[in-house]
Amino acid sequence: MKMPHSENGFQCKPRIRIVKGKTIALGPGKVDLLEAVDRVGSISQAARLMKLSYRRAWDMIHMINQNFKTPLVARVAGGKGGGGAYLTEEGKSVVCLYRKMEQGALVTMQKEWDDLQKLLRDPDSEDSDSNETK
Amino acid sequence: MKMPHSENGFQCKPRIRIVKGKTIALGPGKVDLLEAVDRVGSISQAARLMKLSYRRAWDMIHMINQNFKTPLVARVAGGKGGGGAYLTEEGKSVVCLYRKMEQGALVTMQKEWDDLQKLLRDPDSEDSDSNETK
Repeated sequence: MKMPHSENGFQCKPRIRIVKGKTIALGPGKVDLLEAVDRVGSISQAARLMKLSYRRAWDMIHMINQNFKTPLVARVAGGKGGGGAYLTEEGKSVVCLYRKMEQGALVTMQKEWDDLQKLLRDPDSEDSDSNETK
Repeated sequence: MKMPHSENGFQCKPRIRIVKGKTIALGPGKVDLLEAVDRVGSISQAARLMKLSYRRAWDMIHMINQNFKTPLVARVAGGKGGGGAYLTEEGKSVVCLYRKMEQGALVTMQKEWDDLQKLLRDPDSEDSDSNETK
């Protein structure tokens, strides 16, 4: 997703998390993983793409599935390489809703982000020692 | 800030970060710290409130100040206990803008969050073994 960039290189990133206590049911990393599974059709390939161990990717997907009424990722039994994986309809809906939330947040924040950017400094254009905590 | 709670205990939390490369100029922890300084008028007391070491709090504030054109936190020299600290006008503006962004994001995401909640499960009301990754 495109993030708004400021002229001085700062970015505003809303990281949306669905949490309960210490459990993160969904967050940026998990949604990226879901999208990777959707793209490549396999948990192990998606893990490689995301630079995660297979075990870690599997644990993440297991936790995601545990927190939804219907699993978001289903696996195709058998086949070469132990079978593939795909996003269920619910999985696709959840990814879509999450990205919409993210995009909506960015659009909504644009005015305040514009104002905030004016207060941020460009470290390359000014002397960097004049702004110490006094 | 009040976060929308789902009936099954899940919360949707937008964690907004202002980043450049690996530098986080502003995020939820730093804004909480700024608000604490504003409340108690001292970095050391704010650190205690936030369960941070004084050193860590000072580093965070130093980094914040470095990334803005005008320092967000200024210190009152001398006085008992080494002087206090306060938010500058720019500091107050930044905190206000950040909270507005957060609140705006939450309001914007409400519809999608409502839809997403319906897909989340309540682990207390259902058998928890029927939803394994198959």
